[in-house]
Amino acid sequence: MSEIRRDYLLDRWVIIATERAKRPTDFVTTRERVVEKGLCPFCPGNEELTPPAVLAYVPRKGEVDRRKDDDENRVRGWLVRCVPNLFPALRPSVRFDLKRDKLFTRATAAGHHEVVIESPNHNEHPGVARVSQLTLVVKAYLDRLNHFARNPSLRYVSIFRNHGKEAGASLSHAHTQIIASPIVPALIKEEVEASTRYHNESGGCIFCEIVESESGGPRVIFQNRDYVAFTPWASVHPFEFWLLPRRHMGSLSEVTTVEGIRSLARALRACFGGLRRLLNDPPYSCGFHLTLTTKSQYHWHLEVYPKLSEWAGFERSTRMFINAMSPEIAAGSLRGAIREELKEIK
Amino acid sequence: MSEIRRDYLLDRWVIIATERAKRPTDFVTTRERVVEKGLCPFCPGNEELTPPAVLAYVPRKGEVDRRKDDDENRVRGWLVRCVPNLFPALRPSVRFDLKRDKLFTRATAAGHHEVVIESPNHNEHPGVARVSQLTLVVKAYLDRLNHFARNPSLRYVSIFRNHGKEAGASLSHAHTQIIASPIVPALIKEEVEASTRYHNESGGCIFCEIVESESGGPRVIFQNRDYVAFTPWASVHPFEFWLLPRRHMGSLSEVTTVEGIRSLARALRACFGGLRRLLNDPPYSCGFHLTLTTKSQYHWHLEVYPKLSEWAGFERSTRMFINAMSPEIAAGSLRGAIREELKEIK
Repeated sequence: MSEIRRDYLLDRWVIIATERAKRPTDFVTTRERVVEKGLCPFCPGNEELTPPAVLAYVPRKGEVDRRKDDDENRVRGWLVRCVPNLFPALRPSVRFDLKRDKLFTRATAAGHHEVVIESPNHNEHPGVARVSQLTLVVKAYLDRLNHFARNPSLRYVSIFRNHGKEAGASLSHAHTQIIASPIVPALIKEEVEASTRYHNESGGCIFCEIVESESGGPRVIFQNRDYVAFTPWASVHPFEFWLLPRRHMGSLSEVTTVEGIRSLARALRACFGGLRRLLNDPPYSCGFHLTLTTKSQYHWHLEVYPKLSEWAGFERSTRMFINAMSPEIAAGSLRGAIREELKEIK
Repeated sequence: MSEIRRDYLLDRWVIIATERAKRPTDFVTTRERVVEKGLCPFCPGNEELTPPAVLAYVPRKGEVDRRKDDDENRVRGWLVRCVPNLFPALRPSVRFDLKRDKLFTRATAAGHHEVVIESPNHNEHPGVARVSQLTLVVKAYLDRLNHFARNPSLRYVSIFRNHGKEAGASLSHAHTQIIASPIVPALIKEEVEASTRYHNESGGCIFCEIVESESGGPRVIFQNRDYVAFTPWASVHPFEFWLLPRRHMGSLSEVTTVEGIRSLARALRACFGGLRRLLNDPPYSCGFHLTLTTKSQYHWHLEVYPKLSEWAGFERSTRMFINAMSPEIAAGSLRGAIREELKEIK
């Protein structure tokens, strides 16, 4: 039976329209591959095609060294490389200034917009990557997040990834984008407020409760000692899933130990590998939800949105959603695919 | 210069990234046309392919008669026809029942999901339609809206349109969808709350203020005695525009006179015609924003979202947006196209 579900904490309603339902295999489509014209600016040897790297990891005696490009020399032999976006939405050269004139509020486009090039290997996306490589990617996220968190004029750091042309990726080389913004975006603000309200009323963290409620239930797709991933109760997107740390952590930056980072890398590899296996490498986008303050009632997590349907007039004009895939059925098939995937992950 | 803008009343921030900017003509793309397989279920002669019409207009002595299908006979010779959606997201046969169990809130999928077939002519979309035909379409919206507004178990009526495959249209015959829901969607709730708050603080209607501020300004694209259309200050989508009645009206159902309906039809024809002319019939979706109570601080309007870019990881995980098209530049080119269009509208 179709039903209308509300998100755990937001006033967000989703019609789970199972009577329009499709089988998981009906969501497998032939993807439009991104056809690169000319050189890939993210491949080794083409470092001059991007602005100088703000961070590059190079191997040294089994560890990695943190390096930077200077204007004259680009670091070669890197494992992960982080560069300013060539077409930034926000720019560090601008001073933040907000003005309100009655109905019209405007601010300068101050901030940062960077790209994390996840591997020297063009196609080393999280669904197929070596865990050792993903460990470096997570480390790079943490390095940049911690860097931006120290800047008092920044209020949010969005770490997000677009995979496949239909999900908005304009380049196919494995990469993540980071936008550090002087403004807290609406969705994050709403989640932080709702979880703070929940804490004030009940004394607990709503995300910790969610982890407890979902663990071992019909929507779980992956779990290990540190992480649990599940299709959320009121999934907006078909096959949407969230990955949360079991332990209460407001910000991703609280993942500090080598084992913690490696455990997250393994969880990412398993979940993205399962998604890829189940739906023939579908387009998706994903983003971390976090706060910049570590002592918060919030609880960081990653949300993954496979791009298998359109948000059309109803969704865009109401912010109410129709999802033709039951989260429980999606979880069943994702769980199976991740189980297969885990056999192959070292 | 790029800047960050806030919506007139919502906590919605948009990076107007004019440094990534494109010229209006760069947004003209070759559309993927919807290829119909087999018979069009909305074309005359195929009435049996849809559920029985809940409303059909048939001509009589220069006026229209309201008719209905019965199970045995389908009304022929109709001008506009309204039928239940064959794959409804919500169903009238279900009783509304909402249950909350800690984190998990669910409701039965009670409601209505209908299709307004806008013309017997397959391609008579608002951008090319006769004004006389659009007058009937608006009349049909009002008939269904008034019908649903009398039902106390319904809290919202979403009237929306998807145009083109990329905007989520699965059939190309000109049609609008109506979803009547037992729940007020998040975006509408937020707008109603914000406009009520504004009224309580200032005594005025924020939308009336917007109409006054935008009229004759750099973002106006169309205006007549009754309506004004403009690209909103913090446009989320490239070439997005809103159409508002100048007079304060909470709900679309306050458009009651023959002249009022005709004036709206003309405004729709001009704006959609200009959009079509400027961008080679782009995909778009649109939806009315309204309340079901006439005496409200709200002010109905139509929002039109051309589908020329993707909401990717950043937008979906933060609800903050990047728009590569300046609303002022978009308005300039839309205004010119609408001016041309008006020469051809009778």
